[in-house]
Formats: sequence, C-alpha cells, structure tokens
Amino acid sequence: MQIPEYFSQRHTVRQYSDKEISTQQLNAMLDAASHAPNTGNMQWYSVIVTRDDEQKRRLAPLHFGQPQICDANVVLTFCIDLRRFELWCRKREAEPGFDNFQSFVASMIDTSLVAQQLCTVAEMQGIGTCYLGTTTYKARQIAEVLDLPVRVVPVATVTLGYPSSGKVADGGSWRLPVSAWVHDETYHEPSAADIDSWYASLEADPQSQKFIDENNKKTLAQVFTDVRYPRTSAEQFSKAYLDFIKENGFGTEY
Amino acid sequence: MQIPEYFSQRHTVRQYSDKEISTQQLNAMLDAASHAPNTGNMQWYSVIVTRDDEQKRRLAPLHFGQPQICDANVVLTFCIDLRRFELWCRKREAEPGFDNFQSFVASMIDTSLVAQQLCTVAEMQGIGTCYLGTTTYKARQIAEVLDLPVRVVPVATVTLGYPSSGKVADGGSWRLPVSAWVHDETYHEPSAADIDSWYASLEADPQSQKFIDENNKKTLAQVFTDVRYPRTSAEQFSKAYLDFIKENGFGTEY
Repeated sequence: MQIPEYFSQRHTVRQYSDKEISTQQLNAMLDAASHAPNTGNMQWYSVIVTRDDEQKRRLAPLHFGQPQICDANVVLTFCIDLRRFELWCRKREAEPGFDNFQSFVASMIDTSLVAQQLCTVAEMQGIGTCYLGTTTYKARQIAEVLDLPVRVVPVATVTLGYPSSGKVADGGSWRLPVSAWVHDETYHEPSAADIDSWYASLEADPQSQKFIDENNKKTLAQVFTDVRYPRTSAEQFSKAYLDFIKENGFGTEY
Repeated sequence: MQIPEYFSQRHTVRQYSDKEISTQQLNAMLDAASHAPNTGNMQWYSVIVTRDDEQKRRLAPLHFGQPQICDANVVLTFCIDLRRFELWCRKREAEPGFDNFQSFVASMIDTSLVAQQLCTVAEMQGIGTCYLGTTTYKARQIAEVLDLPVRVVPVATVTLGYPSSGKVADGGSWRLPVSAWVHDETYHEPSAADIDSWYASLEADPQSQKFIDENNKKTLAQVFTDVRYPRTSAEQFSKAYLDFIKENGFGTEY
C-alpha cells in the first residue's frame, strides 16, 4: 500500500498561468473539501471567493503586497463563522452559548481543516496553492474589504491558480526528519546533538547562506527571529487580532 | 479532471479491527503529512504517538471516556511545539520573540494542517480516523500524561485504526450546501428562508428526531446549545485552556 507520491513532493505555488478555474470546478472542490471533519458537524466556517480585480487590489496591501493576491486566478479567505449557526439556533428557539474562547479555538481548528482539505483537492487537480500567513495580521481590515459581519473572522488566505511551471509537485521542500517531531509515548527532550543534526541539512543549503548574507546576519535562526518574524511585529499583530476577536464575541476573560 | 470520490464519501471511523498499523507505516504517513504547508517552514508542532495500553487508559478519562481511545490501534496527540524551534534559535545566537498570541494562532493553524494532512494520507491507505474535540478541554491533564514540557500544548487528538466495517468512505455525511458557506466577493447575509432551506434536510433526518426525543428537546438546535455544547461547559473549558496557554508563554495581554 503505497502513499501517493504527491504528498511528499508537493510544494507551494506562487506563480500562476492565465488558465481559469471555473466557478463550477471551484464549487465542486469546495464541496468535496467540506467533508473534512469538523466539530459536531456544525461547520463554523465560511469562505469568501475573490475573483474581482478591484477586490484583489484592495486585499493586496493588507497582505503586504505579496504579488500572488493579484496574480492568482482565485483568492480564498477562510473565516471562522459562528453567525450562520447562531442564526439557525435563534430561529429554532435555542440560545447559543458560543461567545467564548473555546468556540474560537474549535472554529479556528475546523476552518484550518477545511482550508487544508481544499488545498489537497486542488493540488490533486493540478492547481497550485499558496497560504498567506498575513491574514490574522490584518484581520479587521480584511473583514472590511469582504464585508464580514460580526462573528465572522478571517483565519487563512489561500491563492489558487494553475502553476506557470505546470507542476504542483516536483521534489517537495525541506522538512525536519520524523524523529524530530514525532514522539513515542512521551515527549523526548532534544539534546544539543539532536538540534544540530535535525537542522544540519537546512543550514547547509546554499539558499540559507544567501538569506544570512542578504540580511547581514550570523546564523539562519537570526533571519527568522530578527528579520522574518521579529518580536515587535508579533506583539503588534497579537494585540490587533485579540482586540478584533474580542469585539467579535470571543472573549478571553473569565 | 475528476475529484477523487473519496473526498466527499469519507466519514469518521470510531470502530476498529485488530489489524496493526506498523511503526514503519505510521512514520511514512507522518513524514508525508509533514509536507503540508506551514508558517515559514518552522514546523511549530509535534505529535505524541500512544500505543501503550496503560497510556491509553490514562488518556481515556481526559477524553470523557470516548471508547475509541482504548479501541484504536494508535492515538495521536497533535501539539503546538515552540520549544524545539526556540532551542535551535538559542543555540544559534538568535533571540526568539514567539511568546505571544500571534505565535499561538500561527502554530495552532499549522498543527491543524498537519493533522488534517495525516488524516487524508491515512484514509487513502484505508485507515479510519477520528478527531476528538476534547483535547483542548483537558489540555493541562493531557500534557501531564504525555510529559509535555513548557511551550508544547495539545491541540487535537486523532485515533487511527483499520475500520471494523472495512470502509473509510461509503456515502459521506450530511454537509451544508456550498451556497451556505461560500460567498462571492463579499459576505452575503442569510435570509430566514436561506436558513430554513440549508438546514431542512438535516432536520428531516430521522436521526435528528431521535436526538430531539432522547433529550426531551423541541428542536435539533436545542440539542446543540443545551446538551452537546452548553454555555457553562464552554466557559469552563475556555478558562482552563486560556490559563494553560498563558502559562506556556502565549500571553493574551498587551
């Protein structure tokens, strides 16, 4: 029983051809993806489909100008959505008690699962995908562009398009060995030698040295901590997202 | 270009045969799953593999006695893991700034994506999967059983085993129509008629009437709000998880 090669060979696709993904095809993929598992089958999520060029131009700066927003055929913004389910409850004489952090966590997981299932379905159709991690940084502004009502909060953005290279899978990307992140029965604390060995091939990659040089850093880790994901930005985005989820009724005080 | 039928036909499997999933097979599946997308390729996650009967017996009550913990061949607890990456940073003269809510959100999404990819890989091998939504309810106690150090926080549990029915996909489960959760360009507020129409087939299912009768409720929605996901439990679990993530350095105050 072989695992399809696609899984370990897949990679993010940021450059797309002009070939269109039809609405019919997209909806069939989204329908298939919605059969991903979710909490209590309550489907606490929605997705906003952006095809309109003007909407893409409004979204692009909120994703820090990453070109794939405008270049992609379709942009999908996956959102937590408690609104629809609560409307149903209230129409059925039921009083929802989902305005709390637990519901935020459950819906964030479920939204992530359906997003990932959509990516897998799309890639298996030869369509390239790219997650944008910037969605939670500017959630409030993205919600404005997409006209999201209260109780609907952006979580993840995926751009879709046929790859200009023609390929969604050819060789995969670097990953940690299984021994680094899979633990038998209990957590095994890494030794200094483990850390050296797990990251050795990444650190030896010429691309890593290029990042270090370009950013005038001493180590690859410093590129992550000082340039790509610095504390000051993370704290600013933390506050912005927390404020926004609280305004959407996902309280964090008990 | 057909979407494989598996995606819309799959379903959760809670009853397993005795057929074993070998360590070699499991590791190959986990390795394939790790090629799911993740933020900055930092892989802020770990998974704890439980095969030992005694460990399963310790985990079972923390999942409210759901029988699949003890019945499954393998139990996987997917965890946020900032620890490994931060150890690497500190060994490389880099000062990580990931002790904040933004890093919690990013790692929760990434942990969910790899969990979902593992489920897809497993199901495509004929192995049944079941998510347990109870993991965040009792995260602190689960962390104790699994010896998780600080900065490692349980997010989702998946049980794995060959289905006793022999099937991981035969007919799928009820889902909302795509029109209910997919929005073109902007969010479309549901009308009362939309809500009635989207939930009609679920409400008409004899199983739904059975749940209503068994619980002495008037509507199916009340089964969700009053019995399955009541406010009092959600608030209690919210506080417990928030306290635990804060102790793990994922602050929520700025």
